[in-house]
Amino acid sequence: MSNPIHFYFDFSSPYGYLAAEQIEALGKRANREVIWHPILLGVIFKTTGGQPLTMTPMKGDYSLNDFNRSAAFYGLTYNAPTVFPIASQNACRAVLWSQKQSAEKGKQLALALYRAFFVQDRDIGKIDVIADVAKAQGFDSDALVAAIQTDEIKNELKTNVESAIAQKVFGSPFFIVDGEQFWGADRLPMLEKWVTQGGWKY
Amino acid sequence: MSNPIHFYFDFSSPYGYLAAEQIEALGKRANREVIWHPILLGVIFKTTGGQPLTMTPMKGDYSLNDFNRSAAFYGLTYNAPTVFPIASQNACRAVLWSQKQSAEKGKQLALALYRAFFVQDRDIGKIDVIADVAKAQGFDSDALVAAIQTDEIKNELKTNVESAIAQKVFGSPFFIVDGEQFWGADRLPMLEKWVTQGGWKY
Repeated sequence: MSNPIHFYFDFSSPYGYLAAEQIEALGKRANREVIWHPILLGVIFKTTGGQPLTMTPMKGDYSLNDFNRSAAFYGLTYNAPTVFPIASQNACRAVLWSQKQSAEKGKQLALALYRAFFVQDRDIGKIDVIADVAKAQGFDSDALVAAIQTDEIKNELKTNVESAIAQKVFGSPFFIVDGEQFWGADRLPMLEKWVTQGGWKY
Repeated sequence: MSNPIHFYFDFSSPYGYLAAEQIEALGKRANREVIWHPILLGVIFKTTGGQPLTMTPMKGDYSLNDFNRSAAFYGLTYNAPTVFPIASQNACRAVLWSQKQSAEKGKQLALALYRAFFVQDRDIGKIDVIADVAKAQGFDSDALVAAIQTDEIKNELKTNVESAIAQKVFGSPFFIVDGEQFWGADRLPMLEKWVTQGGWKY
């Protein structure tokens, strides 16, 4: 198999959710492994001077509309969360914990958390909600709750976010493959063409 | 024919150029007229607090790369201009002038100016360059140079930009059709699906 696709996502990012629902199928079509990296865009924005889309004048209203329209365009379910954005550290930490069981388990929990937030309108900023979502997926929720409050996992998330910044990740969703960066759910067709035909000169 | 597609573009916008090369074919496939609106993003940014993509940390480098890669993805020629961004008032005014001859003439000149800037690396911020491009397209360049310096055409551009702001246009390229807004060259597939199938509930 060729180089994996690195997939960076923030749990407060609707476009991240739309990409999360599509990236594994894309990876399979292109015969590329996908490595999932939960990140904290808030921390990254402190470095880049970026700001949440929804808080930008005009662009904010447009985006709130475009989230819904894009989900329908992709054939996905989307419900604007009541509480938005959320603090997503604990959701990220839960994914890091689940990834220690297997990459597959990590993807399963990340997707379940995204759906809890953007389909079922559950506040995945709360530890008890995260535990509940994990339990429904067959995870040991007591072990999860204990693990995500350890310094070990907190430091791991911190290191991962710093590493993402070092890789010049500045948004969500964000993809890196073959040294090439792709930003946005709307870059999925280009990303797929890239990995399928082995890139192109430009 | 159904409602037209309103196409807003700034001459300093590489993605605007990529859209300009594709929107007429899309309109024909969907049986929709396309109305071209040259705008000044700099003026709009003063209202929205937006800033040029290329001047945003990290996003700037990404974009400079993505312009080239996207052009190749669409099968278009693109050469990063030496002078960038440019003051594009006069190019806008020239298009407004040419539109008085016919909508078709306006599109022809707009596309010729975009290609002069993003393919031939000519500084279309300069009136003599604009005149030269127009002349090669069969326009009366002396009449053009005189017209774009009149208060009439200056006010027309001012009014058009204010009208775009009133329509909540905040970027380039930007499309409005059937009351629906689409922002970005990467929204062309969604726009096409929208106008082809008559929209969808979301």
